[in-house]
Amino acid sequence: MAKRVLVLGGDGFCGWPTALRLSAQGYQVDIVDNLSRRNIDNELCCDSLTPITPIATRIATWRQLTDEDIGFHRIDIATEPDALLRCIEQTQPDAIVHFAEQRAAPYSMKSAWHKRYTVDNNVSGTNNLLAAVIECGRDIHIVHLGTMGVYGYGRVDGAVIPEGYLPVQIETEAGWQKTDILHPADPGSIYHTTKTIDQLLFYFYNKNDNLRITDLHQGVVWGTQTPETARHPALINRFDYDGDYGTVLNRFLMQAAIGHPLTVYGSGGQTRAFIHIRDTVRCIQLAIENPPKSGERVDIFNQVTETWTVAELAQKVADIAGAEIRHYQNPRKEAAHNRLEVERGKFQQLGLNPTTLDQGLLEEVVDIARRYRERCDDARILPSSRWTRNQQLDSEGSSGQTPPASAAG
Amino acid sequence: MAKRVLVLGGDGFCGWPTALRLSAQGYQVDIVDNLSRRNIDNELCCDSLTPITPIATRIATWRQLTDEDIGFHRIDIATEPDALLRCIEQTQPDAIVHFAEQRAAPYSMKSAWHKRYTVDNNVSGTNNLLAAVIECGRDIHIVHLGTMGVYGYGRVDGAVIPEGYLPVQIETEAGWQKTDILHPADPGSIYHTTKTIDQLLFYFYNKNDNLRITDLHQGVVWGTQTPETARHPALINRFDYDGDYGTVLNRFLMQAAIGHPLTVYGSGGQTRAFIHIRDTVRCIQLAIENPPKSGERVDIFNQVTETWTVAELAQKVADIAGAEIRHYQNPRKEAAHNRLEVERGKFQQLGLNPTTLDQGLLEEVVDIARRYRERCDDARILPSSRWTRNQQLDSEGSSGQTPPASAAG
Repeated sequence: MAKRVLVLGGDGFCGWPTALRLSAQGYQVDIVDNLSRRNIDNELCCDSLTPITPIATRIATWRQLTDEDIGFHRIDIATEPDALLRCIEQTQPDAIVHFAEQRAAPYSMKSAWHKRYTVDNNVSGTNNLLAAVIECGRDIHIVHLGTMGVYGYGRVDGAVIPEGYLPVQIETEAGWQKTDILHPADPGSIYHTTKTIDQLLFYFYNKNDNLRITDLHQGVVWGTQTPETARHPALINRFDYDGDYGTVLNRFLMQAAIGHPLTVYGSGGQTRAFIHIRDTVRCIQLAIENPPKSGERVDIFNQVTETWTVAELAQKVADIAGAEIRHYQNPRKEAAHNRLEVERGKFQQLGLNPTTLDQGLLEEVVDIARRYRERCDDARILPSSRWTRNQQLDSEGSSGQTPPASAAG
Repeated sequence: MAKRVLVLGGDGFCGWPTALRLSAQGYQVDIVDNLSRRNIDNELCCDSLTPITPIATRIATWRQLTDEDIGFHRIDIATEPDALLRCIEQTQPDAIVHFAEQRAAPYSMKSAWHKRYTVDNNVSGTNNLLAAVIECGRDIHIVHLGTMGVYGYGRVDGAVIPEGYLPVQIETEAGWQKTDILHPADPGSIYHTTKTIDQLLFYFYNKNDNLRITDLHQGVVWGTQTPETARHPALINRFDYDGDYGTVLNRFLMQAAIGHPLTVYGSGGQTRAFIHIRDTVRCIQLAIENPPKSGERVDIFNQVTETWTVAELAQKVADIAGAEIRHYQNPRKEAAHNRLEVERGKFQQLGLNPTTLDQGLLEEVVDIARRYRERCDDARILPSSRWTRNQQLDSEGSSGQTPPASAAG
């Protein structure tokens, strides 16, 4: 079993609670992070709703509480490959969890600069990691956070999204033959495109070098706290609600908390897959503890626990928190409605018992959104990224109202 | 019809003859190149067999001969995106031909550094180009040189490689449904992986921004001169014969010219697709003149004219030039034998009348390999890159001989 784990991107929203979870479970954990998520807050002039302490404070607090030492290495894996290699050689990990990517689709579409940053950062980072693992000569298991977005939504009507590989029939001179392939990629943003690119890099390094890789195609993560981050205020996890990094659920929660209408883009018929951050960190641990064998292909899991439409989500928040729902023109280029049938049996077979939205939503409303609502900058709630040049953001549909001036920026 | 064309990588083996061809055909041509191919010659301590003049001499010679001005812009498109955008805005091209990628599979596998360089250079370069075309706001047709290697070799026995999109059947609740998908990627090196990554970038930008893109999956290019490069010695094209950049045919030609046995890796049962450089430049022009319409998906051509096994190729060279054939252990990780059935009707429908190996091979033997053989550095003929750590290069098979000492480096 893996004993030493390197968590790349361990200061981020998924990385930090994962680092704590693994440390609490007896792993020796080292975090590699360039603190880019904090720097992007500076660029976007916004901040986590929950107050995030400096990384040194986070780690010192955890040490005081648990006597566990988490190492920290400020390395940019996309531009400092030699430092990454040195860190791997020094820490000698059995597994590396790779979260170190720019993760917001809207941010990736803001401008040519943001497209380039996202591709350069994510693709070079992943490739640098893979090349370093080969170079160091150790048989290290890589666990990577992918996204459900690699599959796209509703390519073929009535088809179920498998866990990674898709059975297909291909025409040959002997008739149609069955085989299975990496699910055809259908990314919806530059960010999602980088995760489909990661898949190809994994495919090649696994084929050529027998690298052991697990790729986790995660849905929209919701929730803020895990048992470990809840142990002390200085350990609290991020809660992003802005138009770039805030997921749809967090925006709704925040809007309800400050008395703003819930901003549903388009009809709300978009179906998405969800998972609580508590289940994310459990899944990562399960993935580490169940690595593929040498010579096996890349292992792919769908890291999701339930699916809802955006309209259903808005209704749930409105029911608990009391809020009006208002429809706006969709700033994303995406289908107005889609079905989403996702295979998700593998983690449940390994023992995952998920937290559902209906179980956990009240905690988010009361303990996070209402508790910290005075920290909310309401100018950040509407989206500020457009997918193409000619899109505009106007309210539309039955309400016929324009967005409030404070939210138009 | 396109009038102004930007040729990215226009100083390279395919780019230079393409630039001349288009200039001769009445296009206003601008070359963008960072001269990386010349710099890699310095790194590898080798040189084109044919003597290549400086880019300024090449362009001045062409101007003297034709009165045509070809512009030159020394820009690294992977690291100087602002300069690229400025160049596009200044030259206002109708079409951009994108050759500006590191193109040697063995070079891409030499070390972690070379893996990183190839990914950073090729992926960032392509993405920077696409982002710049969106940013400049002009409807520019992009013609990209892909590779047959995106398809892999022989995934499903008896299946024909289509021109890009593969008809498949996918299981749905209503039974197996037909659709067509981008052919599943099966790259054999980091270099080939970057071309499969390019496909995903093209897919996304085409879907999101209606970018008009043609992707040309080219086979192994052979031949040296085109009618334009043959007009003056200062215009001559590259002939690479080293273990990294030399294609299999060029290595055989060179070996025959200096009396070295032809080095067949493995059994020689590997089937590959070929095209003469004269046909490459014709195909590029045909692609420019037949762009996809706005709203159409990425147009994919297979830019190949014939297929042969490596053993057949060796035999053809041996027959013309007189040479012994010797088998060595394969430094690449690849199947010993494969069939290769490739659809290639689209360029022929557009009027391509190809030069076959049987027609053109003698010219290569006499006018290139024998004529310049005194420039050959025979230490460069055997491969110096390994696909994995534990591979070695030894002669094997029926000859049982070890490679000559001078060729072992």
